[in-house]
Amino acid sequence: MNALEKKFAALAADAAPGQEVRQDLSGVQAEMMGGLLSGTPVDFSHGDVDAHPPTPGSAEVWQNGFKAGGQQAYTEYRGAKEIREKVALRLTNFTGREVNAKSELIITPGTQGALFLALGSCVTSGTKVAVLEPDYFANRKLVVFFGGEVVPVALKFSGQGDENGPNLAQLEAAFQSGTEVLVFSTPNNPTGVVYSAADIAEIARLSSEYGVTVIVDQLYSRLLYSNETYTHLRSDPSAPKNLITIMGPSKTESLSGFRLGVAFGTASLIERMERLQAIVSLRAAGYNQAALETWFNEPEGWMDTRIAAHQAIRDDLVDLFRGAKIEVTVPQAGSYVFPKLPPLSVSSEVFVKLLRIQAAVTVTPGSEFAPGTGDSIRLNFSQDHEAAVAATKRIIQMIERYKA
Amino acid sequence: MNALEKKFAALAADAAPGQEVRQDLSGVQAEMMGGLLSGTPVDFSHGDVDAHPPTPGSAEVWQNGFKAGGQQAYTEYRGAKEIREKVALRLTNFTGREVNAKSELIITPGTQGALFLALGSCVTSGTKVAVLEPDYFANRKLVVFFGGEVVPVALKFSGQGDENGPNLAQLEAAFQSGTEVLVFSTPNNPTGVVYSAADIAEIARLSSEYGVTVIVDQLYSRLLYSNETYTHLRSDPSAPKNLITIMGPSKTESLSGFRLGVAFGTASLIERMERLQAIVSLRAAGYNQAALETWFNEPEGWMDTRIAAHQAIRDDLVDLFRGAKIEVTVPQAGSYVFPKLPPLSVSSEVFVKLLRIQAAVTVTPGSEFAPGTGDSIRLNFSQDHEAAVAATKRIIQMIERYKA
Repeated sequence: MNALEKKFAALAADAAPGQEVRQDLSGVQAEMMGGLLSGTPVDFSHGDVDAHPPTPGSAEVWQNGFKAGGQQAYTEYRGAKEIREKVALRLTNFTGREVNAKSELIITPGTQGALFLALGSCVTSGTKVAVLEPDYFANRKLVVFFGGEVVPVALKFSGQGDENGPNLAQLEAAFQSGTEVLVFSTPNNPTGVVYSAADIAEIARLSSEYGVTVIVDQLYSRLLYSNETYTHLRSDPSAPKNLITIMGPSKTESLSGFRLGVAFGTASLIERMERLQAIVSLRAAGYNQAALETWFNEPEGWMDTRIAAHQAIRDDLVDLFRGAKIEVTVPQAGSYVFPKLPPLSVSSEVFVKLLRIQAAVTVTPGSEFAPGTGDSIRLNFSQDHEAAVAATKRIIQMIERYKA
Repeated sequence: MNALEKKFAALAADAAPGQEVRQDLSGVQAEMMGGLLSGTPVDFSHGDVDAHPPTPGSAEVWQNGFKAGGQQAYTEYRGAKEIREKVALRLTNFTGREVNAKSELIITPGTQGALFLALGSCVTSGTKVAVLEPDYFANRKLVVFFGGEVVPVALKFSGQGDENGPNLAQLEAAFQSGTEVLVFSTPNNPTGVVYSAADIAEIARLSSEYGVTVIVDQLYSRLLYSNETYTHLRSDPSAPKNLITIMGPSKTESLSGFRLGVAFGTASLIERMERLQAIVSLRAAGYNQAALETWFNEPEGWMDTRIAAHQAIRDDLVDLFRGAKIEVTVPQAGSYVFPKLPPLSVSSEVFVKLLRIQAAVTVTPGSEFAPGTGDSIRLNFSQDHEAAVAATKRIIQMIERYKA
C-alpha cells in the first residue's frame, strides 16, 4: 500500500451511519439462524426527522433567505454577519460567556464541518491528540487524516451519573507526554454521559496548565434530561486559552438536512478555520444559513416537549434492555443508548448485519467508537416511539437467538 | 513560525473573492489621488444572482426536498441515489461518455467541495501536482494544504482563440520529472480561455502515457459563446485511467446559494472522495440536493437567453477595455475577463483597494491566480448589464488616474 492507500484505508466508512445501504450483505447469509422478525423498519443509525420534525418555521425562513438573493447566497466564508450576531448573542446566554460575533464564531456545513475545520486548524503531521474512548467515530479518523497521532484516554460509562467520566490520570499523563490537543464530546456520543462539573473543572485546569488546545463537541447539550446539569467548559474561569466549542441544530432541532453547525471560541483558531473553509467548501450554503434564525428561538414550550418525548423513549428502551439483563447506561442527555451485547455465536459486525436482514433494524457497531467497544451497539433513539420500542424488542429477540 | 502557522499563512484569504469586507482599508488612504467616482456599486468578485436569477423552479424543488423529509435529509454521503441517476444520465449526454450513477458520481458541497475532495484523494505529502498559471486560485492552496508540491505550467492567454492554451512542452517536462497529478480548469478561470480540441487530445495522450491523474474543472463549460467549440477530456479515446471531471450549477445557473457540485469519473477516486466527505461535512445539504432536479433540465430556451445576455455584456466590456488600449483576451466561455493593467503609480494590490474606496467597484487581484499575473484584475461580468458597463468605465477612469 502506498501512502494514499493507507490514508484512505483508515477512512473506511462502510459501517458509518447512513452508509449501510452500500454494504454487500451476501456474505453473512450463511451465518443466519431462524427466520425474519417482522415489524416497521427502524434505522437507529440516525434520528428520524419525520418522527421529530424540523423546528417550526425553518422551511419558511429558508424561503426568506432565498428571496434575499445575492447577499444571502454569497456570505463571508464564516457566515452572514447578521446571522452571526444573533447566534453569538444566543450562545453567550446559553454558555454563560461572551461570544464575539465578529471574531469568535464561524458558521459551518454541519457540526461535522466544524469538527473538520477545528481539527484541521490545530493538527498537522505528528501532532499528538488525546481522544476519548469511546467517542464520536470521526474524531479518530480526522486526527489520522491530518497526520496526527491518537493518544487514547478511557471514558468510564458503566456507572451511574457522576461516577462516569474521563480517566483524568490518563489525561494528565497524555498531556505530560506531549499531547497538544484534546477533542471530546459532552454529552458523549455514543453513551449519553454528561461530563460532571468536577471533571470539566479539572479538564480546564489541566489543559490550561499544559497549554493544550481543546475542542469540545457540545452537539447534544440542549437535549438534557430532567435532574441533569450541564457544565460549559468555556465558562470555567480556568478555561484554556485555545478552546473551540462546537454546536449545531442538526440533532435535537432536526435541521440535519440544512447542514448547519457553528464553532466558537479563540479568535486565532476561528480565523484558521475560515481560511480552511475557503478551500473546503467556501461556506455553509447561503440560503440554509437563514434557518439559524429559528435556532435558540423556538416557540415557547417546543424544546420542553421535544425533550419529554425523547426522555419517554429513553426510559422505555433502557427498561427493555435491562429487563433482558443487557447492560446499558442511562443517557443523561442526547438521543443515544449504547447497550453492551452478551457473548454471541457470531461476531458483532455480523450480528449488526443480521439485525438488518432479519429484524429490519439498523444500528451502528460499537467498534466505530473505540477499538475496545466492539461488543456494544449504538442506537439513536430519536425515532417514532412505538416503532423504536418494537424494534428494540426485536433486537432483544435477536440477541437471545444468537447468544453464545 | 511553526508548521501549522506556515500552513495557514499559505492559506491567506483576505483578497479572496467575497472576503473583501474583512479587509482593513485604512492603510491605503494616503495613496489616494482625486475624489470619488459615483455610480451603482458593482462587486465583480462574484456573479450577481439578483441580476441573473437562479434557474426557475429551484426554490420550489427545494421545498419538495424538504417535504420529502428524512430520506432527503439523510442521503448517502455521495448523494441521493435517485438524483445521482438523473444527473449521471444528463452528464453522459453532455460529455459524450457514460457516467455510472452508482460508482462514478458524487454530489458535493459546491464545486469547491468537489475540488477539495478530488485533490485530497490523490495528493499527499510530497505529491507533485502540475498547476496551470493562471488558474483558479484555490488549486495552488489545496496542493499546499495537502502537503503536495506545485509544479507550475504556463497557460498562454494573450492570443486569439486556439492560439491560447497550455504550454505542452512544459507539461510533458513536468510529467517526465515525476509529476503525478494535473489539475486545470477549462474554460479557464480567470481568462475564459477554452482548451482547444488539439490541446485536450495531447493532454489525454500525455497523461495516459505518464500515468498521471487528471482533475479537470469544467464549471463554466455550459456558458459557451457563439462559434466556440468545447472538448470534453473524458470522452477522448486516450483519456487517462484516473480522471475526475468537476461541474456544478453555481455559476451559469446561479445556484451558488445551494452549494452544489458534482465530480464524476474513476470509481476508485470517487470512493476515496466519499470517504473524505464522510469526515469533512458528511454530504451536500440533503434538501439542497433536490435542486439538481432543475440542472440540465432548464426551460426551453432559458440557457440560450442566459448565454446571449452574458455575451452582450462580454462584448461591451471587451470593447471598453480595448478602446482604452487595455489588453484583454476575449473570453470564449464563462463570465470572467482578465484585463492587464498598464504600469501604475501604486501597486496593483493598492489599486484594487482604491477601486473599492473611490469607484465602488470590487475586483479580484490577478496575484490570486498566479504569482506572475499581479498586473491583471479579474472581473466576473455576470452582473446587471448597465451597472457593469458603468463600473467598467469607472475602472478605466481610475486606470487613467493612476497611470505611472
